[in-house]
Formats: sequence, C-alpha cells, structure tokens
Amino acid sequence: MEIISGGVTAPIGFLAAGMHAGVRKNKKKKDMALLVSKCPAKTAGVFTQNVVKAAPVMWDKALCDDIGLCQALVVNSGVANACTGEAGDVDVAHMAELVAAELQVPVDQVAVASTGVIGIRLPMETIAHGICELSGMLSDDLESGSHAAEAIMTTDVYKKEIAVKLQIKGKTITVGGMCKGSGMINPNLGTVLGFLTTDLNISQELLQKTLRNDVIDTYNMLSVDGDTSTNDTVMIFANGMAGNDELLETDADYPAFAEALRYINTYFVKLIAADGEGTTRMFQVQVAGAESKEGARKLAKSVVTSNLVKCAVYGSDANWGRLVCAMGQSGIAFDPYKVDIIISSEAGSLKIVENGVCTDYDEERATEILSPDQVCFHANMHAGTETASAWGCDLTYEYIKINAEYRK
Amino acid sequence: MEIISGGVTAPIGFLAAGMHAGVRKNKKKKDMALLVSKCPAKTAGVFTQNVVKAAPVMWDKALCDDIGLCQALVVNSGVANACTGEAGDVDVAHMAELVAAELQVPVDQVAVASTGVIGIRLPMETIAHGICELSGMLSDDLESGSHAAEAIMTTDVYKKEIAVKLQIKGKTITVGGMCKGSGMINPNLGTVLGFLTTDLNISQELLQKTLRNDVIDTYNMLSVDGDTSTNDTVMIFANGMAGNDELLETDADYPAFAEALRYINTYFVKLIAADGEGTTRMFQVQVAGAESKEGARKLAKSVVTSNLVKCAVYGSDANWGRLVCAMGQSGIAFDPYKVDIIISSEAGSLKIVENGVCTDYDEERATEILSPDQVCFHANMHAGTETASAWGCDLTYEYIKINAEYRK
Repeated sequence: MEIISGGVTAPIGFLAAGMHAGVRKNKKKKDMALLVSKCPAKTAGVFTQNVVKAAPVMWDKALCDDIGLCQALVVNSGVANACTGEAGDVDVAHMAELVAAELQVPVDQVAVASTGVIGIRLPMETIAHGICELSGMLSDDLESGSHAAEAIMTTDVYKKEIAVKLQIKGKTITVGGMCKGSGMINPNLGTVLGFLTTDLNISQELLQKTLRNDVIDTYNMLSVDGDTSTNDTVMIFANGMAGNDELLETDADYPAFAEALRYINTYFVKLIAADGEGTTRMFQVQVAGAESKEGARKLAKSVVTSNLVKCAVYGSDANWGRLVCAMGQSGIAFDPYKVDIIISSEAGSLKIVENGVCTDYDEERATEILSPDQVCFHANMHAGTETASAWGCDLTYEYIKINAEYRK
Repeated sequence: MEIISGGVTAPIGFLAAGMHAGVRKNKKKKDMALLVSKCPAKTAGVFTQNVVKAAPVMWDKALCDDIGLCQALVVNSGVANACTGEAGDVDVAHMAELVAAELQVPVDQVAVASTGVIGIRLPMETIAHGICELSGMLSDDLESGSHAAEAIMTTDVYKKEIAVKLQIKGKTITVGGMCKGSGMINPNLGTVLGFLTTDLNISQELLQKTLRNDVIDTYNMLSVDGDTSTNDTVMIFANGMAGNDELLETDADYPAFAEALRYINTYFVKLIAADGEGTTRMFQVQVAGAESKEGARKLAKSVVTSNLVKCAVYGSDANWGRLVCAMGQSGIAFDPYKVDIIISSEAGSLKIVENGVCTDYDEERATEILSPDQVCFHANMHAGTETASAWGCDLTYEYIKINAEYRK
C-alpha cells in the first residue's frame, strides 16, 4: 500500500465539487459538496446508533439496505436536518430529486448528508441553487476533491482527506476519502461524516461487511465528548472502474483492501481527535493483554471518555489513579493488581504502574512525556492476548467556552 | 414524617466524634470521624460498582454480607486507601482492630471508610492516635454528629446532614444521616460516602433490601462527572433502640420507613450535585411517560451525564437538541416525535419542545428560567406511565481548573 496525493477524486471515475452556496452566512466557508461516480457504485454505510436519527441518515440507510448502489452524494454543512419531523424527510427527498434531475441518474441512487445546527429546516432554495451550480463544476482533479472536503467541514480547523493505492488481483486500486468531525457544532451537536471512494470491483455485501468490521475498531473507538450525534455517517462507494475481477473475501488480496480501509479510517479518527473542539492534546489508549477483544475495546473506550482522564491529559498529569479507575468503571472484570501502565510520546516512555501499584517514577519526567501534542497510554491487563486502541482529546476551558456560549 | 435538627446522633443510642487527627495537612480541616452504636446495629450497605474497589470497601462489603452487624464506624478523609495492594487490606484490618480494642467491641463489628487520594498508604500512626483521641470524645449530642459530618468532607464546600422522625408501630423512630461528595478529590478520585443511623428495630435482610431499592433511585441517579469512584459507600445502621416490634415488609408502616430513606437520600443527592466541584448550577431531569421504569432511569441518567447538556446548563442555554440527543444515546428506544420538553425553575416554566419539534418559544424567557441556581428539565416520552428523576451539575471552567492542576 502506498499513500498518494488527493482524496475522494483519486480513484478512477469519481468527480467532485465544493462551493459556498449560502447555507452558512460566512461567505468564505464552503458549505455544499457534490460527489459523483461515472457509473453506479456499490455503496455501504454505517450510521449513528442514536435513537434520534436525522432525516438524511434514514435516507442513506435505506439506500444501503435496499439498492446498495449510488451515483451521487450531495452534502451540506450548516444545517443538520435533524429533529425536523416529516418536513425533514420531504427536504431530503427533494435534495435527491434535484441531484437526480441535474445529473440524469435515478433518484434512489443519490445519497444525501447534512451536518450543522439541528431542529431547523434546510434553506431549500439555496440548496437547489447550490446543486445546480455544483453540477456544472464537477471535475476529477484532486483540487475538486479538496473543495468537497472543505465544504463538509463545520468547526473543523483543517480539512481531512487522504488517498492510497494498492494492488488487488493484478490491478492498481485506489481508495480515497474525506471526513469531518470536531466535537460538536455550534450551538448544537457534533457529527462525524466520512466518505470513501474506490475504483475496486467488489460486491456490495462484502463492501458493507468490510466497512462495518473496520468501523468497530476505528470510528467506534473515538471519543471527543462522549456524545453521539444524530447525523453520524460513514459511507464507501466502490465503482469497479479499476477493472479487477471481483474481490472475494477468500482472495489472498482481500486483507490488503481491509488494511487500506483500516489505515484510512484510523488516519481520519486521529485527525478528528486532534481537531476536537477546544483540544490542545490528542491521546491514544492502547490496551493489551485483555481476556477478550470486546473487553479490550471497552477498557480503552472507557479511558478516552472519562472527563477526569481528559482533564489530566490537559494538565500533562500522569494521573494513573484516574486511568485505573476509568478502566474499572468499564464494566469489564479484571484484576487491578495485574495491571501495568506505560505512558509514552515523542519525548520518551515511562512505566508508571506495575502490578496495579504506582512505580516510584519521577513526576517531572512524566510531565515532560505528557507535554507534546500527542501522547499515549499503554495498559497491559495481563489476562490474555487481546488488544484494542482508542483515541480521544483533552477537556479544556475552550471546550466549555465553545459549548456554553450564552454564558454572560 | 417530620424533619428535625441533627444528623447521625439524632436517633437513640448513637454517639459520634470528629476531629483533625493529621491525615490532612490543613489543621483547620477535621479528617477523622468515629460513629458508635450503644448496641450491635443491623447493618446494610451498597458499594461502588467499579471493578477497582478500595480496601475499606471490601472490608465493609464483607461485614454486611457476613455478620450484618456493626457497633462502630471509623472514617478518615485525605487518603482513600485504594490501589494500595495487600498493604491496604492490612491497614484496614489494623484500623478495625484499634477501634475494637478502644471500644471493647468485636473487630468484625467495626466498619471502616476512607476517602481522599488514591494509591498512597494510610499514615497508620496518625490514624492510631486519632482513634485513641476520638474514643474519648464520643458524645450523643447533635454537635458531635456535626463534627463527624465535617470530618468526612473532602473538597465539599459545606457539610451534609439531616434527621427525620416518624411513627412506626406505635413508636417514634428517628433516622439520621451524614454524607460527603463533591465530584472528585484533588488530585485523584471523587467519592460519595453516606452513613445513616436509625433506632428502628428491623431485620438486616429487610434493611439491606430497603437500602438497595432506595439507592437505585437516589445515589445511582446522581452524576457529577460520570466517573465512578473506587470508594463509594452508603451504609445504614439500625440499632433497634426505639423499642418497636420488628418492622416487617408487610407492615402498614413499612412504606413510611422506605419513604424516610428516600427523603434523606434524595436530599443528600441534591446537596452533592449542588456541591459538585466547580459547579455553579444544579439541575434535575424528570422523565415521565416512559415505557419502563428502567428506561425512564436510563433516559434521565443519560441527560445528566452528557457533557454537552452540562455545558448548556452552565450557559443557561435551552439547548433542546442536546437534551433530545442525550436521550437518544441512552440505548432506550423511543419515538422522538412524541417527546415534549418543559424547562422550569423558581423563575417559571416554559414548553420548549412539543412532539419532538421546537416550540416557538422566546429565547430570552428561556434563558431567564435557566438562570437560577437550580433548574429542571421535564421530558415526557408519551410512551407509557413510568417516571424517573436524575440529578447533575453544570460543567465549568472551574471544574477543569481543579482537575488539570499541573497545567502551566
């Protein structure tokens, strides 16, 4: 696998465009994106587990479950079209119809995503105008992919895109992607949107399975604030234009594709954690020696969602008691007196807990190690062989400032 | 039921004392308490669900499970005796032995509780000295009860005690209590300790059942920061000295006792939420119209643990999207388009959501209602008849300051 330039337009047969249509007031901020595949692409998706699902999430879920094919994706930022009742469903369908008419594709092969403020209606005139303009701007160059990646940003500080190429069944396959996510959107909810494109030839079923398996250890192991958005969406579009024979799960090359997905989604998850609202420091939690995979995941996830741990990370504080406590509240049984914890970063590494008890470590050295922008906690449970990683960010004054905006 | 003056020494036959023994450096801060019953008291307890349990928690759990009787409770603040390995178990046993020797009671009828910094050993010489001094200070006056309530405080801003009297089977019964809890203890974990005394004659089994049922809807519905301490302990001691015939679950007077416990523990839970570290505002979430009791609890609890909701409460922001989203991530199924939400406080009340959609409410009026020290969110799911309440506090700059202390 090789990392190459570009994003969603890197694979063969994908066109994109991004622009400021007017959903958001700030004219410098692109707020609509269009992504098109030259032929129907097998489409898989994973969506928010929140009981409250935004209208576009319901639309895309049906698209993946029913036809499993897609030729165009339209995304707006600024308005989430969540908690909008039946009117919201009508607006999603209308967006899809407008795209279908512009591009001459079936309406049930148009995916729709929104992110932004919840509880308000989409400005449909602006959206319609945007779709019309975007259709005329579509291009397969890398810059257009970047414009789309910019358009889906909300409070993100930087755009997030990547592309990789690999060999599958004698052909060069490209996988590209863009995502957004930054904690939450002023003044309402946070949302993760991730869209991957590939020219791989693969069945919809295997694409869905591969994506779902991957999300368990990537997006599902990410926490910015523990809140689950109504709009979370990760989709992948595979148009088969690389011309390989259909990739099967039993093929020797299948793991390479799964690995490419894992690489891209892990890359995005780290970027989202590092770009969390108000964040000054990203941290990774690696759990090893767990009895079960699910246990390892829950232990790691419990640490990245703990407010106490997040405050300690903000303070560069090797507060091992909070780490052990956070694992203890995960619901997973373990022997606290078998746990070892090592902290690490570019500044070095240090064992701070051995057999559940504090080592006689140097506090100044620990603070030094926990001071860079990215730090890592490694916990070994010494109960088995399973491992898992999770990613989070610190909890800061700025986070509260952003999310308590009306405070006098 | 009538609220009366005092705390743990209000019921007949309970003596207490509190003092600065030297576990904590601040000489103005009492750090040890002793509570004694003149005769063996039936003893019930509910303890932390964290897999990592402090040594005194293991000791008291065994006391409740095995003998179910207690004549003395010794508590220290400043050091939690958690994550201290076998040495911690030895220290707990030693504390109990010292109390047993001083008071001439069996060592297996001595309960021990600690709260404070985790991972360090108790200063046993100081503790021994304290136990000796406290034994000579024991008194059944209300002031001594207050001293004990002060001694168990950590970062609490004010002491928490209450007493009530009620009629059971023709006798006047008194129930008293003290508790502490304030989010977490610098620089480690938060702990809730609650101790109730009563002169009621009741079996240990029924006492345990009544306490456990009560905790589900009181302490378990409280969240300051979503972190579960290693030391959480709620115990009740019933010495039977009021002289009533043994209270049975089938007695007409039983509900009055359960109600007294509910009143006291709800009072404490509200005080702890209001005294949460860095807190400027306490909030209650009342869920009504839920399909099941457990569902109602999970919905309410999910709202009080949401960082986004907590930030909104800090900002006096009627952010209904966050409320709906927090309920949606509780894991409980509901129809978002049936939900009504009303906000209320001493400043009035206002319906902000009807059938899952925002009412056309006045934002200034909403901010006014959400500005007092205590506010309430009422959510009606319109799916059944079950209700639940939960209590929480806002998330503030001060919380982060307290918990990221090493930040330069």
